[in-house]
Amino acid sequence: MSKLSQICAYLNQEGANIAVFSDPVTVNYLTGFYCDPHERQMLLFVYNDSAPLLFVPALEIARASEALDFPVFGYQDSENPWEKIKAVLPSTDSKKVFAEFDHLNVTKFQGLQTVFQGRFENLTPFIQRMRLIKSQDEIEKMLIAGDFADKAMQIGFDNISLDVTETDIIAQIEFGMKKQGINKMSFDTMVLTGNNAANPHGIPGTNKIENDALLLFDLGVETLGYTSDMTRTVAVGQPDQFKKDIYELCLEAQLTAQDFIKPGVTAAEVDAAARNVIEKAGYGEYFNHRLGHGLGMDVHEFPSIMAGNDMVIEEGMCFSVEPGIYIPGKVGVRIEDCGYVTKDDFKVFTQTPKELLYFEG
Amino acid sequence: MSKLSQICAYLNQEGANIAVFSDPVTVNYLTGFYCDPHERQMLLFVYNDSAPLLFVPALEIARASEALDFPVFGYQDSENPWEKIKAVLPSTDSKKVFAEFDHLNVTKFQGLQTVFQGRFENLTPFIQRMRLIKSQDEIEKMLIAGDFADKAMQIGFDNISLDVTETDIIAQIEFGMKKQGINKMSFDTMVLTGNNAANPHGIPGTNKIENDALLLFDLGVETLGYTSDMTRTVAVGQPDQFKKDIYELCLEAQLTAQDFIKPGVTAAEVDAAARNVIEKAGYGEYFNHRLGHGLGMDVHEFPSIMAGNDMVIEEGMCFSVEPGIYIPGKVGVRIEDCGYVTKDDFKVFTQTPKELLYFEG
Repeated sequence: MSKLSQICAYLNQEGANIAVFSDPVTVNYLTGFYCDPHERQMLLFVYNDSAPLLFVPALEIARASEALDFPVFGYQDSENPWEKIKAVLPSTDSKKVFAEFDHLNVTKFQGLQTVFQGRFENLTPFIQRMRLIKSQDEIEKMLIAGDFADKAMQIGFDNISLDVTETDIIAQIEFGMKKQGINKMSFDTMVLTGNNAANPHGIPGTNKIENDALLLFDLGVETLGYTSDMTRTVAVGQPDQFKKDIYELCLEAQLTAQDFIKPGVTAAEVDAAARNVIEKAGYGEYFNHRLGHGLGMDVHEFPSIMAGNDMVIEEGMCFSVEPGIYIPGKVGVRIEDCGYVTKDDFKVFTQTPKELLYFEG
Repeated sequence: MSKLSQICAYLNQEGANIAVFSDPVTVNYLTGFYCDPHERQMLLFVYNDSAPLLFVPALEIARASEALDFPVFGYQDSENPWEKIKAVLPSTDSKKVFAEFDHLNVTKFQGLQTVFQGRFENLTPFIQRMRLIKSQDEIEKMLIAGDFADKAMQIGFDNISLDVTETDIIAQIEFGMKKQGINKMSFDTMVLTGNNAANPHGIPGTNKIENDALLLFDLGVETLGYTSDMTRTVAVGQPDQFKKDIYELCLEAQLTAQDFIKPGVTAAEVDAAARNVIEKAGYGEYFNHRLGHGLGMDVHEFPSIMAGNDMVIEEGMCFSVEPGIYIPGKVGVRIEDCGYVTKDDFKVFTQTPKELLYFEG
């Protein structure tokens, strides 16, 4: 069953005629057409019993029409999009209208309420669930994205030197990726040295790479519509024993969680598998974020791998396993691989080694 | 009056006690603290009669507390943020609650409705208006961002060659900017050759730079919290006379609009000043977007310079002037400068020449 047919089936099951999609990534997922409308409007209308319709800014009509086999309508900047939508839709009549509450802002929501009289219901849980289980085809794309992340990490490693700054290394990594045809990193690349790595959301800057310290890389790429995400922490020179111990503790937590993952366990249990290792060693307070996040077409998507989430892990789910230990002023370590759940274990998208690597200081 | 005091004054005027800010850029504008919470929650609560309060993900508490002189509260990933907010706010009692409807998604809106019983009203128009008129300090930052855009454009020009692709040139531009300490372009840099430039939202790829054709660059940087944005179209080799004529027409439209801008004219009139030039020459249908957009901390912000917008131009407004002519399969030209309105004219942030520049093919 095609993805759009699955939406139709869901509408029928819920007694609704219309679903409205406003997240460009969801529109891409469902139709293969991607466009970022910025502050303009792009909306996909899916009917339970007739063809879907895409509404885009005028300057996207040509590209969308070429990509899609259903009607595309647009509006000029100077037109009121809601009036135009009302005029072009074959029907606006539905007792219930499904929309992506996690993506729709209140202003657009109010605009849609002028188009449809029905009661609005939240489509986000259904589409999250649909995007949650990846097909073999999606996993293959994510393996390719992972392979590029490994290449990007290697470029980072190749550029470690006490003469350069965090930002210099980032420039080399992103330049190298662009030369290999990667247009977009999946988020702002992070290279954090020494105490800057001890902040879980530290910001890279013109800090020179520190000697006898740890150096953290967090990066990923976007390719074929899918993302990758990986973190490695490496040694520059000879960090002291405490830093090395914290590294080994974090690695043990990461591997323990990865080994624990299989269909049937819960997200909370996966988080706990890593967290218990760090808590038992007395550093629980320094691991102050969830263990992981889903990824796919978005680098952060449903689900959260965290305490309190009793969602049962299933084959085809893809998420990160990224414990971190951040002791302000002393040391910061995070180790992350993303992977996919098979029928009996968890396989990772990225292959860069995880034992502590040493680089000359 | 400080920016936060202006919010308090507005609340008093409107008979409301509380404003909630959810746009990270607005929070930065009001407080100087920036954080992108991704799918987590960051909310700034401003009271008419007591200290504001920032609510952030746990891992941002340290950085936020250091940056701000008012209380910061956070939540762990496994906690329900709305219950936590209810517990930490000094008061949730207000007949009206102001929130940024253009930034708040329906799910968050429903979360806030569990915290506050009052009627929600839209704060977006007030904050747009507040951010609309730039101070001298803001304009100085935007001049610096513009200066970096000129430098980025020069790097692009220096790398023009028939042996390279659009993506190669982008890699060089962004690498060069990173080496100069620019962490972030204000949007994905565009380099579009030949027919690819004839699409107003063309996507750069591995197309080799075409000879005897036009080449379009659209780029900007983010620095000091402010953005720049500039487009230039240049000649590679010897484009035919038709292409050169279209270039001159677009340039005439761009300069005509810039010269027209001063306090007292309307946004629609500015758009018409450029559009009339192109329409009179018979190419109106190929200029299928608004003339410009506001910019500041966001690269696209209020207002739209377009037909139908009767907003009166005032000193301190900053926006783009970017007519384009896109004739599919034939030629694409866009020329853009952003600038600020003074008491009697419009001054631009970017100085790269606008007469047609020729590069060896």
